[in-house]
Amino acid sequence: VNSKLPQTGTTIFTVMSALSAETGAINLSQGFPDYDCSPELVGMVNKAMQNGHNQYAPMAGLMSLREQIAAKTERLYGANYNPDTEITITAGGTQAIFTAISAVINPTDEVIIFEPAYDCYAPAIKLMGGLVKSLALDPPDYRIPWDMVKRLISARTKMIILNTPQNPTGTILTKADIDELTAIVRNQDIFILSDEVYEHLVYDGETHHSMARYPELRERSFIAVSFGKLFHNTGWKMGYCLAPAYLMQEFRKIHQYLVFSVNTPMQVAIAEYLKDESVYLSLSSFFQQKRDHFREGLSGTRFKLLPCQGSYFQCVSYQGLTDEKDTDLAVRITKEFGVASIPVSAFYTKATDHQILRFCFAKRQETLDKAVDRLLKF
Amino acid sequence: VNSKLPQTGTTIFTVMSALSAETGAINLSQGFPDYDCSPELVGMVNKAMQNGHNQYAPMAGLMSLREQIAAKTERLYGANYNPDTEITITAGGTQAIFTAISAVINPTDEVIIFEPAYDCYAPAIKLMGGLVKSLALDPPDYRIPWDMVKRLISARTKMIILNTPQNPTGTILTKADIDELTAIVRNQDIFILSDEVYEHLVYDGETHHSMARYPELRERSFIAVSFGKLFHNTGWKMGYCLAPAYLMQEFRKIHQYLVFSVNTPMQVAIAEYLKDESVYLSLSSFFQQKRDHFREGLSGTRFKLLPCQGSYFQCVSYQGLTDEKDTDLAVRITKEFGVASIPVSAFYTKATDHQILRFCFAKRQETLDKAVDRLLKF
Ligand SMILES: CSCCC(=O)C(=O)O
Ligand SMILES: CSCCC(=O)C(=O)O
Repeated sequence: VNSKLPQTGTTIFTVMSALSAETGAINLSQGFPDYDCSPELVGMVNKAMQNGHNQYAPMAGLMSLREQIAAKTERLYGANYNPDTEITITAGGTQAIFTAISAVINPTDEVIIFEPAYDCYAPAIKLMGGLVKSLALDPPDYRIPWDMVKRLISARTKMIILNTPQNPTGTILTKADIDELTAIVRNQDIFILSDEVYEHLVYDGETHHSMARYPELRERSFIAVSFGKLFHNTGWKMGYCLAPAYLMQEFRKIHQYLVFSVNTPMQVAIAEYLKDESVYLSLSSFFQQKRDHFREGLSGTRFKLLPCQGSYFQCVSYQGLTDEKDTDLAVRITKEFGVASIPVSAFYTKATDHQILRFCFAKRQETLDKAVDRLLKF
Repeated sequence: VNSKLPQTGTTIFTVMSALSAETGAINLSQGFPDYDCSPELVGMVNKAMQNGHNQYAPMAGLMSLREQIAAKTERLYGANYNPDTEITITAGGTQAIFTAISAVINPTDEVIIFEPAYDCYAPAIKLMGGLVKSLALDPPDYRIPWDMVKRLISARTKMIILNTPQNPTGTILTKADIDELTAIVRNQDIFILSDEVYEHLVYDGETHHSMARYPELRERSFIAVSFGKLFHNTGWKMGYCLAPAYLMQEFRKIHQYLVFSVNTPMQVAIAEYLKDESVYLSLSSFFQQKRDHFREGLSGTRFKLLPCQGSYFQCVSYQGLTDEKDTDLAVRITKEFGVASIPVSAFYTKATDHQILRFCFAKRQETLDKAVDRLLKF
């Protein structure tokens, strides 16, 4: 076979989770909670199945769920999305991202991404024959150098991919970033794919600058959102995409032939559960407590903490402590100290090692405490 | 936007199901049961959720489920698939088909499909830059003219897509077809995508000629299978793909970035439920009863019944009864007589109307009886 993605091996998430299981380490590598989702939501899925909601949902998703999403988007960002034409339910955030890229990227189209970047953007771009134009951001702040973005733009630039809050760095876009971005895309045929799967996980009273808030950006943006991060059930693989009708029409043409539709009983349940807005309004303080507790614990270790404004993730630098490559150190800390993490070099398309590890703090307090105890020995 | 799939409109399944709902017709259009899946299976999903199986499954699927699939495949087809490297769980049969096509089709590669064909093959091929080489089959038997297939083969032929039992025609491949196919692909670099989502729905004691049975075919085949058709829960969107390791490796590279993984609690439940092999061994007689009952009823109408050897579907010809286009007649029968069907012209890439309608008989006996009563008036 002539491989379409010759560079793809086993993802770092699979590698580190497997090593963690094998060695009995505490798994702070792959991003998922070690506590459970709401029993009430589980009960709603059970009820939906018992009530016979087990056949195909409409291609774009159940209207009741799309209406709840429209209400939530309006409540949070003051944006009106038409559930009929501008919202589609997906099998998780990843499927939304893959489908959005597939819908608009043609061979030789250029797509700008910022690295470190979540690992699913580049392969989807390449699969469509597009060219990845990656811009590496510098630790510890990982700010986007907008003047360099301007220089990267060409007549072939078809899309810019943003991710706020960002995985793995935990940074968020500011209003100044939004203004720079707006100036850059204004009067250009450039689409935006905004990966906002951690939309609710923004700390210290900061604002999540969703593309949905800004009409000039929103009119050219696909926004990918994840229910797994909102409800602590990453294994349900439920999410959605927001986009203006002319883009959503193209998105659905792919979605229709890629999965056709998404899990019906879970859609029924989520539509019901979302009626209570406290479900999402309470999320940021829930996670901020975890972040604060974990950071406090880590401050006693020899690692240097990077900023964390959002997401599931805390990055730490070990510069000056050892010369090991981050992939080697992540493995060694798993084996010798019993805590699994993700080496941030895994999020670059060109070899880049700033000696930074990513820890997931979407864990019970006991888990975080135990992990800190072990990391104190390093 | 420069549409990637300019010809795609709303699928006929959405159109007819919507019209059916609007007019209060009996919906024999889109293929899904109007009875429910097993309460025992529902209970197993509920238990899995309550037991905390709510986070990411492994990328290729839960090993316990892959092992059950390996056992079922061996039991039914005498084929050993390695659960570690040759089986991947997907979000339904459609995602398996899309992913298999994406994994191996490059720009200008040719793919042979047989029409009438299920509607998701051609768009996936085009999206990858491939060329659809369609061969129209003739009613009422829809046999594959293998001499014409031979003539269609070129140095660019990369894949042949088969579908047995076939949707919409209800035909199945015979051993003679398998022999012809084997002779054609032998010593050629041609892959096979075998859509076997109706594998268990084969009637009159006939054999399902899965590609898994024939080593020479199996070594070059992706096989797409659906749990929705097996468990009467099309809305759960669960399925899987079988392929030899060298092909599965490429399949997973796409799968990983397309959905990453599939619904965890449903995987846990299906793995448990599949332990009882009577679940799948009883399916063909369950559906044959429906087929026989429906055919008997329809034999009193003015429609001419086409053969039905497998699948959910019975096709009928109205040639000689009216000159209407099949799309028009399907709409008129829905509105005037209260029974929705699918016009078979919808399954062709080039306009072809043999005046044939497809009815889904995966329905309760009362539903089929009521539909027949109404169709008797036509
Ligand atoms: C889909 S597996 C990876 C989960 C995740 O988002 C992460 O760990 O970054
Ligand atoms: C995925 S909607 C169509 C269901 C089906 O397989 C059919 O009706 O042919």
